[in-house]
Amino acid sequence: MGMEVMCFDLEGVLVPEIWINVAEETGIEELRLTTRDVPVYDDLMAYRLRILDEHGLKISDIQRVIARLRPLPGAREFLEWVKANFQVVILSDTFYDFAEPLMVQLDHPLLFCHNLEIEANGRIANWVIRLPRHKMEAVKSLQGLNYTVFAAGDSYNDTDMLLAADQGFLFTPPQNVVDEFPQLPVVTTYEDLKAELIRVSSRDLTP
Amino acid sequence: MGMEVMCFDLEGVLVPEIWINVAEETGIEELRLTTRDVPVYDDLMAYRLRILDEHGLKISDIQRVIARLRPLPGAREFLEWVKANFQVVILSDTFYDFAEPLMVQLDHPLLFCHNLEIEANGRIANWVIRLPRHKMEAVKSLQGLNYTVFAAGDSYNDTDMLLAADQGFLFTPPQNVVDEFPQLPVVTTYEDLKAELIRVSSRDLTP
Repeated sequence: MGMEVMCFDLEGVLVPEIWINVAEETGIEELRLTTRDVPVYDDLMAYRLRILDEHGLKISDIQRVIARLRPLPGAREFLEWVKANFQVVILSDTFYDFAEPLMVQLDHPLLFCHNLEIEANGRIANWVIRLPRHKMEAVKSLQGLNYTVFAAGDSYNDTDMLLAADQGFLFTPPQNVVDEFPQLPVVTTYEDLKAELIRVSSRDLTP
Repeated sequence: MGMEVMCFDLEGVLVPEIWINVAEETGIEELRLTTRDVPVYDDLMAYRLRILDEHGLKISDIQRVIARLRPLPGAREFLEWVKANFQVVILSDTFYDFAEPLMVQLDHPLLFCHNLEIEANGRIANWVIRLPRHKMEAVKSLQGLNYTVFAAGDSYNDTDMLLAADQGFLFTPPQNVVDEFPQLPVVTTYEDLKAELIRVSSRDLTP
């Protein structure tokens, strides 16, 4: 083991996209909208919470849906290898109450994300962004603690984390992100990411 | 889940004291010395590595001894509860190559510690302190990322971490540390520490 930390985005990298799956499982099509449809994140979240209210969905309903999701195929085994060879931090823009049913299945690696305000009756009243650009800030903090930081993510909201890292990787990104960030290497499987981590590590790691 | 992180010292809190057990298992009494006997840490480490050399002990020999150690009774179950209710970081002054056989048994929570320089033949050539006062610096970094930080440790080298935390706890400390830091509450069992964490958390946690 050495002084190297691996940071992972969560959705799309280790687990499925949460909102899309909640939309599918509940049959509420409006919950499929993403920042591609509603560019301002706060507007999108306000819209989502209004939709949940309209359907009378509480946090427990959403958590029941999320608990039926599974980590992406191979994610658990891959993460086991990474945890045995690096210190692991998950950096996500989801919320603790949403992620928890999936984090149980990943044996609770350290997760930095955001919070929901939930009323006593279970209604999701609001959301609290813990820190703007928290993924990038976490990478910088880890570097300030004398760690070399590698990172993998799939979306726009990962790119400042990936660029701040000592080496970032785009994992199965959409083509527009690939085009816009040609300086970031692209990997499409856990095996490829493992090979890249072995390559960039200062230590002798075995696959 | 909320914006709360729990930091643990490792040895004496979740796992046994590593050097003392290496001394017992190898029968090399000189390895029992601690900073109480040799106050300057660098002198102590240089002495320990010289003793290992004299006995021809390589990293693999030490790791074999450490692999026979087990987490303290109840530590795994307690840590499972903490991981389900807090984000967990282990802050230790041990070395990754020593801690690894114990971290496997704890399912690899995030560990910040120091490094050994190991030669190709397995001889431990040197040690590298990753960052001076790294426990306290980690607590400050987490607070800078907008987390409330709780912490538990048993020794002098934990006290600046415990004082920097939003709430620190001395866990089964020696009497001289208790006497010198009367502002730090003392707990002696995992059940007591769990009760304290439930008390200080801003969230409604269940035992």
